[in-house]
Amino acid sequence: MTQTRLNGIIRALEAGKPAFTCFSKVDKLTAQELTDAPYDGIVFEMEHNPYDVAALGDALQYMLSRKKIAESGSVAPSVTPIARIPANGGEMNQFQAKQVLDRGVYGVITPHVSTVEQAYNMVASARYAKPTGAALYEPKGIRGDGPATAARYWGLSQPEYYAKADVWPLAPHGELLVGMMCESPEAIENLDDILANVPGIGLVLIGEGDLSQALGYPRQYDHPEVVSAMNKIVEVCKKHNVVVGNPHTNAKNVARLIGEGYRFLMSAPTRSYGVVGQGRELAGY
Amino acid sequence: MTQTRLNGIIRALEAGKPAFTCFSKVDKLTAQELTDAPYDGIVFEMEHNPYDVAALGDALQYMLSRKKIAESGSVAPSVTPIARIPANGGEMNQFQAKQVLDRGVYGVITPHVSTVEQAYNMVASARYAKPTGAALYEPKGIRGDGPATAARYWGLSQPEYYAKADVWPLAPHGELLVGMMCESPEAIENLDDILANVPGIGLVLIGEGDLSQALGYPRQYDHPEVVSAMNKIVEVCKKHNVVVGNPHTNAKNVARLIGEGYRFLMSAPTRSYGVVGQGRELAGY
Amino acid sequence: MTQTRLNGIIRALEAGKPAFTCFSKVDKLTAQELTDAPYDGIVFEMEHNPYDVAALGDALQYMLSRKKIAESGSVAPSVTPIARIPANGGEMNQFQAKQVLDRGVYGVITPHVSTVEQAYNMVASARYAKPTGAALYEPKGIRGDGPATAARYWGLSQPEYYAKADVWPLAPHGELLVGMMCESPEAIENLDDILANVPGIGLVLIGEGDLSQALGYPRQYDHPEVVSAMNKIVEVCKKHNVVVGNPHTNAKNVARLIGEGYRFLMSAPTRSYGVVGQGRELAGY
Amino acid sequence: MTQTRLNGIIRALEAGKPAFTCFSKVDKLTAQELTDAPYDGIVFEMEHNPYDVAALGDALQYMLSRKKIAESGSVAPSVTPIARIPANGGEMNQFQAKQVLDRGVYGVITPHVSTVEQAYNMVASARYAKPTGAALYEPKGIRGDGPATAARYWGLSQPEYYAKADVWPLAPHGELLVGMMCESPEAIENLDDILANVPGIGLVLIGEGDLSQALGYPRQYDHPEVVSAMNKIVEVCKKHNVVVGNPHTNAKNVARLIGEGYRFLMSAPTRSYGVVGQGRELAGY
Amino acid sequence: MTQTRLNGIIRALEAGKPAFTCFSKVDKLTAQELTDAPYDGIVFEMEHNPYDVAALGDALQYMLSRKKIAESGSVAPSVTPIARIPANGGEMNQFQAKQVLDRGVYGVITPHVSTVEQAYNMVASARYAKPTGAALYEPKGIRGDGPATAARYWGLSQPEYYAKADVWPLAPHGELLVGMMCESPEAIENLDDILANVPGIGLVLIGEGDLSQALGYPRQYDHPEVVSAMNKIVEVCKKHNVVVGNPHTNAKNVARLIGEGYRFLMSAPTRSYGVVGQGRELAGY
Amino acid sequence: MTQTRLNGIIRALEAGKPAFTCFSKVDKLTAQELTDAPYDGIVFEMEHNPYDVAALGDALQYMLSRKKIAESGSVAPSVTPIARIPANGGEMNQFQAKQVLDRGVYGVITPHVSTVEQAYNMVASARYAKPTGAALYEPKGIRGDGPATAARYWGLSQPEYYAKADVWPLAPHGELLVGMMCESPEAIENLDDILANVPGIGLVLIGEGDLSQALGYPRQYDHPEVVSAMNKIVEVCKKHNVVVGNPHTNAKNVARLIGEGYRFLMSAPTRSYGVVGQGRELAGY
Repeated sequence: MTQTRLNGIIRALEAGKPAFTCFSKVDKLTAQELTDAPYDGIVFEMEHNPYDVAALGDALQYMLSRKKIAESGSVAPSVTPIARIPANGGEMNQFQAKQVLDRGVYGVITPHVSTVEQAYNMVASARYAKPTGAALYEPKGIRGDGPATAARYWGLSQPEYYAKADVWPLAPHGELLVGMMCESPEAIENLDDILANVPGIGLVLIGEGDLSQALGYPRQYDHPEVVSAMNKIVEVCKKHNVVVGNPHTNAKNVARLIGEGYRFLMSAPTRSYGVVGQGRELAGY
Repeated sequence: MTQTRLNGIIRALEAGKPAFTCFSKVDKLTAQELTDAPYDGIVFEMEHNPYDVAALGDALQYMLSRKKIAESGSVAPSVTPIARIPANGGEMNQFQAKQVLDRGVYGVITPHVSTVEQAYNMVASARYAKPTGAALYEPKGIRGDGPATAARYWGLSQPEYYAKADVWPLAPHGELLVGMMCESPEAIENLDDILANVPGIGLVLIGEGDLSQALGYPRQYDHPEVVSAMNKIVEVCKKHNVVVGNPHTNAKNVARLIGEGYRFLMSAPTRSYGVVGQGRELAGY
Repeated sequence: MTQTRLNGIIRALEAGKPAFTCFSKVDKLTAQELTDAPYDGIVFEMEHNPYDVAALGDALQYMLSRKKIAESGSVAPSVTPIARIPANGGEMNQFQAKQVLDRGVYGVITPHVSTVEQAYNMVASARYAKPTGAALYEPKGIRGDGPATAARYWGLSQPEYYAKADVWPLAPHGELLVGMMCESPEAIENLDDILANVPGIGLVLIGEGDLSQALGYPRQYDHPEVVSAMNKIVEVCKKHNVVVGNPHTNAKNVARLIGEGYRFLMSAPTRSYGVVGQGRELAGY
Repeated sequence: MTQTRLNGIIRALEAGKPAFTCFSKVDKLTAQELTDAPYDGIVFEMEHNPYDVAALGDALQYMLSRKKIAESGSVAPSVTPIARIPANGGEMNQFQAKQVLDRGVYGVITPHVSTVEQAYNMVASARYAKPTGAALYEPKGIRGDGPATAARYWGLSQPEYYAKADVWPLAPHGELLVGMMCESPEAIENLDDILANVPGIGLVLIGEGDLSQALGYPRQYDHPEVVSAMNKIVEVCKKHNVVVGNPHTNAKNVARLIGEGYRFLMSAPTRSYGVVGQGRELAGY
Repeated sequence: MTQTRLNGIIRALEAGKPAFTCFSKVDKLTAQELTDAPYDGIVFEMEHNPYDVAALGDALQYMLSRKKIAESGSVAPSVTPIARIPANGGEMNQFQAKQVLDRGVYGVITPHVSTVEQAYNMVASARYAKPTGAALYEPKGIRGDGPATAARYWGLSQPEYYAKADVWPLAPHGELLVGMMCESPEAIENLDDILANVPGIGLVLIGEGDLSQALGYPRQYDHPEVVSAMNKIVEVCKKHNVVVGNPHTNAKNVARLIGEGYRFLMSAPTRSYGVVGQGRELAGY
Repeated sequence: MTQTRLNGIIRALEAGKPAFTCFSKVDKLTAQELTDAPYDGIVFEMEHNPYDVAALGDALQYMLSRKKIAESGSVAPSVTPIARIPANGGEMNQFQAKQVLDRGVYGVITPHVSTVEQAYNMVASARYAKPTGAALYEPKGIRGDGPATAARYWGLSQPEYYAKADVWPLAPHGELLVGMMCESPEAIENLDDILANVPGIGLVLIGEGDLSQALGYPRQYDHPEVVSAMNKIVEVCKKHNVVVGNPHTNAKNVARLIGEGYRFLMSAPTRSYGVVGQGRELAGY
């Protein structure tokens, strides 16, 4: 069985470097294009886009590049796909994590996780059951067993998949990244408790949009109260040595964010149409 | 920003008139056809038809008529789409309202809402977060922030969308209609409490099918016990000045329903094949 | 093997009665709805709607009503589906007829057939090969052999399907209706020749839209020149005893059309929203 | 109304025989192929495959064989489709059972049912409401009323559908099979209580994959501890006279399983490519 | 009826300016994104991407921006979609132009048009029939009549659509742009003849890929022989005052191309991931 | 650039061994399953199944197995996909070969090729243009240039793809297999001429179904007249050293077919449900 680290996001983080990612629509063409992008991973955004698991399966398949795989001779993906599901932590949902993991993603992000109980359920829903008393028993896994598609997608046998399909860094060789959105005052208040009591959280991703709304400054990411709330999150994450992520990294804030200790940096690709403007100018418009 | 009332159902109700609507399958052709229908709005029925959010997005797109929009010069839809989601109130679901609102519908109806807690969750799931202490804070919003698609569909900028994406009539300029199905004896019993304690409910829609089953008279909408139960609902709604709706309006009962105070009247389109009969008769069949 | 006439359009025509049909989009919901309609058959319109053969297969499947089949105990469809393909006669296309027949339709209509050669190709493309010298050899079949799906859809074994999958009335027990659109002055001029020389044409359907355009009176179906051209077509069809069809039958013209000898009458279903108007009036709009 | 037993799985069980089934992907081609298979029923596996209700509707439609229905003259399906939904019992979900039943399946299996409360919710979500005090009132139905599609699929009128759409064997003429996955130590511990207190459970299906994981012997179905746990389940089911099912029946264990009292036996179809090997040998590879 | 010029590509050309366009996949997300791009028009590339007419219909629908239409109060699209079909000129195909025009595109480009006969067929297939002797009779239209969907998409009544659905500049108010790919030595040789004898060609688009292959210098667009062949095309187009287009406009060649007289300039959008590189550098990779 | 032979069918043939293949529906699940099958290649059957190029693209993507590619370190597919298109040779179609090749298949089979002219067009439509006078100029290529998707699918750069995308064995290193169906008396009569005059035909596949129909013995593959006709084809192919294929290889005829010189042997996978019968017997049915 391969000893290679499969999850490129985790690989970057283990190397002490920030992981670069972006949100992606659940779309074949976009997925294929992003396979060649310089990101460590991508997050299929299924919270505000349709939660369409069949489409996710197709998109994942379009991320296989015969050339890249053959040249590397490795089953590690060039860009590692994870997914954000729509159910809030408070819904105590379990099937959505199961369904996206069973398609083959290497991690799951849950929106609006605000309490220890919610965070526990989030991690549990990404883990297989273990016998009572087993090492790393908690949070007790409740992910139903049906690994055929995911194992095939990862390029592993089923026993190999079992060995790797646990949450990092709780399971040091685990390849699944489980992340919670921290995006409300309640969540911030409870974050220290959550990280102290729920092992297996690999990422705390700040939800700037929701947080800024809840603070009364919608989408004003530089407002002092928003920044102050974010700093609080970063501080708690550092205390517990959990990776903290920023969803709106750009040329202006990237240096600051890295300096402040963000290690999961999301930046949207940009599309430009430059020649058109140049052409119009030349044509005397 | 446009001051026009966008939601045509609310527009009718604000004008003191009943709103006329129908259920629609989540289907491109049907949606396009209904764009030219004389309804104030339509309800994409996703409780008994597949809850398929991607298909809803397509259907909404097919409701855009270039001609109607250009001629009106307004972003108000000619027929206003809302959606009924499948999760019962008792499931305390939140993601389904978020997913359909994020596609662009102007309202959500939830089946089997029977308690104050369920109704609170229903309204909360359609509202964005506000800062503690803000006006109209309750029910506390838990709809995740991701307005890009809906704002585009409504023809608004994101700040404009935020300003309008709240529940009517709680927010007087809100454009979202949140409705609960009242369709069980328990719900009737609790309705007074619900309407007294949960602001933001724009519509109580009677579920005649379920109610008549629960009373032991399946689909006998004229049975005295069924009628009596419905009258009770109407009465409570009037007491709280909440719009009450009837799902089976037809030529026989429309006058009575309007007289009794129903203000959300649903009537299915009918398809006829008249010439065939006429032709067969002429042809001597 | 069943001796029942399967094709309901042919059944009506053999009984000396006009067949009533309509155009249908290639759509699951529409197809299902039309299964219960009073038509003898429907024409999946794939000339101006997308020629989407996979969608046709789905639509056909949605035309199966378990109840109707069980109650009749017969494999004859309650409403018989045929298809209009997009390639003009002049394109000498063969694959489109094959693809729709292989999904299971009971007939094919080809647009803009204007010459003997085109009509010959149209009929040939709907027929299987026969050995030289066999009865009814001409027009020589060029439909590729692959009957599994169609035979299953018809509810027959493959030998049974072979026995029935020939063109009526050339093959008296044939269940396939092959129709040509007659919709240009050239086609009218050549129609006598076509019908004299090409056996196997079961239907001449007038294309009023195209014909009226070609005559300079777009969509003026009552213009004397258009009517006169149509009369010419009817007359030639009567001479050769070939069924002639009208695509726009309505309450006003149905008696006249039957009187003039049209035997394939197409009338669109109509959708009405009557209660809305009634309700608005009652509500004092 | 037909008195025929529609659900072939129940028919076998009522006859005192084991029912043979298999899991199926939610796929048109597979569904069509399985219509001709020798199974009593199939289980559309939507726990680990995408929970795609629209696709389920299509797959069901492809299970209609015109020939089989016409020849039998009965609306009873040749192979009876039921579905496994993804939400664990602990999620207290109700909409998933409703959505698959509303497409037309004849039963629902829920994963990870571990307590009386969960089992009660599972059965309730498959039943329509009844008036208080009615016979067989408990578990109190919460399936929303919208039978049009399912009734059509079953080939029944809506009143006929109502009469049959209840859970067997609680309702002796019920045609719905409700099954729980028993797949954790907790579930085994609680099983006696569950079966004693929740009427309406038609099937206890052992989840060998999950169970063996929870016991620490992943996929070692013959390990003494796994076998012992399974025996415990069988024993409790026998005590309560509830059908117990095995998901991995094969040539080696089938005699033993029947001997031990399993009455719902799932065995995957196998695909073989025998001639290729034979051919290669002949060709001197 | 609106007198506005609808086709933005033609609008630019009539104003004496080059039109800027790009190829687009037939994809909803891409189409929606391009609606806000600064192009005059886009070309749905269906030659090398799947010729999927249903998907084209969806993509077109996603190009409707409620905001843009309402703000302009005009039915003219902000970015004008046309399509390239797959059949080579030599196939004498007609249905593909009909099918894409019937979805609503404002023009069609045909690959590998090499002779007068092929060019005539290309133009004819985009035109409706006219009566013999009518003005602008040639090339004689063979596009079947079925304008409902396209007229709706354009935002016009059917008579309005008829009045505008002819080829520009042959019909001065025509809104359809018909273009031929000129991409082989034979086509170059015949181009003077083609343009002299076939009215209605609105665009000659050079196929640099095919042309360079045919000349033996695959994709070497700056090779003297390729450039020389292209110059020949430009020269002939200028002689006949027909717009000539270049498919690979970029920052380096745009000034030259405008100078040389190209008036249809295609430049692909580019996607960049700039912050990632910057971030990695900052992080000390 | 890799020197490996990519096309597994050609690899077998070059090694002097028969190639084993089967027909496949254009279906994701089937395609994935066949990736692990022991065939040298598969033929996506698009003649009698819908010619759906978008679905073909998806199916091809599902044939990528990360594990197989990584383990081999090679871009050669484990099972090589080619496609049969629907247009008969006599239709002189070119776009269908282009569209399937542009998705990434390694070969194309055309039905009903009966003359030199048809065969020439078939080969030409699979080849890119070359400069006049180039080696292997004939049949003159008319496949439009747009290799991006196919090159990516093959795992090659575009120049590498150009170098390999020619027809074998005409181009000794070509990776495209072009096959003609020989399935009518006319085709047999002309076969010698065809093979003598049209280079680039890699396969003559006998169409037993059509041929037996044309001879008057539908599906009687062992009838002396059918066998005799087939022998004639084999003989002519041997004379020209062209591979001849049989579409219905089975356990009974495989030895004979190999002995007679067939080198492209198609055998359908079979599905069995063996345990069910065994179980029923055990259960005393």
